[in-house]
Amino acid sequence: MKVILFGAGGTIGKKVTQVLQEAGQEVIRVGRKGVDFSVDIQNPEQVSRLYAQVGHFQAVVSAAGEVAFAPFQSLSSAQWLASLQSKLLGQVQLVQLALPYLSEGGSFTLTSGILGREQILNGVVAATINSALEGFVKAVACELPRGYRINAVSPTLLEESVPRMGEYFPGFTTVSGEKVAQAFKKSVMGIQTGQVYRVLGD
Amino acid sequence: MKVILFGAGGTIGKKVTQVLQEAGQEVIRVGRKGVDFSVDIQNPEQVSRLYAQVGHFQAVVSAAGEVAFAPFQSLSSAQWLASLQSKLLGQVQLVQLALPYLSEGGSFTLTSGILGREQILNGVVAATINSALEGFVKAVACELPRGYRINAVSPTLLEESVPRMGEYFPGFTTVSGEKVAQAFKKSVMGIQTGQVYRVLGD
Repeated sequence: MKVILFGAGGTIGKKVTQVLQEAGQEVIRVGRKGVDFSVDIQNPEQVSRLYAQVGHFQAVVSAAGEVAFAPFQSLSSAQWLASLQSKLLGQVQLVQLALPYLSEGGSFTLTSGILGREQILNGVVAATINSALEGFVKAVACELPRGYRINAVSPTLLEESVPRMGEYFPGFTTVSGEKVAQAFKKSVMGIQTGQVYRVLGD
Repeated sequence: MKVILFGAGGTIGKKVTQVLQEAGQEVIRVGRKGVDFSVDIQNPEQVSRLYAQVGHFQAVVSAAGEVAFAPFQSLSSAQWLASLQSKLLGQVQLVQLALPYLSEGGSFTLTSGILGREQILNGVVAATINSALEGFVKAVACELPRGYRINAVSPTLLEESVPRMGEYFPGFTTVSGEKVAQAFKKSVMGIQTGQVYRVLGD
C-alpha cells in the first residue's frame, strides 16, 4: 500500500513512518524539510501537484497543522484565522484535493488531539479546532465516495513532547509515540470509518 | 437582568425574546432588521460600539451565524471561510468583545446545533462548526474571568423550520421553538457553565 504522510518530519510523523514501514507499507514522506517532498499543506496547487505526481495511492495520513496558544482575551482574529487555515482547513483540503486520485477503498487519517476533550491554560484555539476536526471526520465519512474511509487520531501528550511541553499539561498522562502510531496504523490498515481514535495514557 | 440577544429576528431569536421577557428580563434585540439595534456580528467596531452604548448588561445570547450547505466535494475555500467567519468566529468575537462590559457573574449563551452529532446530506460544514463551537464553549468556560459563565444550546430541527428545511432532515424528531427557548433561559438564568444543552424531540 502506498501511503502519503503529511507532517512526516514531526514527532508523530516520524513514528508513523516507522510503524507503517515495519508493516510493509510504502510511505511517501511529506513535510517541510528532510522528507521526500516539501509541500505547504495550505497551498492547494502544491498539494494537487504532489497528488498528481504520486498518481496512485491508497492512504493519506496527516499529522500536520499548527494552532496558536494564548489567553483567550488576547487572541487576535489573525491568530484564530491562521490556526483555522493550518490545522482545520489545511487538513480538510488534503482530503478534498485527494478525491480525484485516491484509490477506491482508500483511507484518510487526520490528527486532532486531547485538547478537544480536556483543557489546558491558553488552549482555547486547540480545543475549538480539535473538536471541529472530530465533527468533520464523523460527518464527511457519510459523504465520501468510492468506499473511502476517514478517521481521526486524538492523542494525549506524547512522552517525546514532555521536555518541550510537559509543563503546560500538569497531571496529564502521557503516551509513547509508538502507541500513537499504532492508532494511525489501525486507521490506515483497518476497516472502520468516521471514528476518532483516542490514544490516552495508561 | 439586561440581556443582549444577537439574531433576535430569527426563528429562535423571536422565541428566546418572548420567553426571557415573560421571565421578567429586559431583552435588547440585535439583528439585521426589525430589532432594537442593527449590527453585523462580524464587524468588531459595530459590536463594540453596541456594547459600549448599552453599557451594563448581565447576559449575551447569540442565535446568529450562518453556514454553507453543499456537497463536500464542491465546497470552496470561500464557502468554508465565510461559514467559519460567521457562525464560529462571529460568535467567538461576541464573547471576547463583551469582556470589558459584561457584569461580574454574567453569562454567554451561544448556538450550535444537532448537526454536530448527527449528519444530513451536504451538512459537513455545519457539523464541523457546531462541533467547534461546543469545543470552544467547554474550553473557554475554564478561562473566563469575573465569574462569567458560558454555555451552548444545540437544538434539533425546529417545528417552525419544517416547511422550509424539513425535507433535508428525513426522520429527525423536531422540537418546538418554545422548548428550545427554555434551554436558553436555563443557560441565562441558571448557574452552570461549560455545558452544551441538547434540545431533542420527544
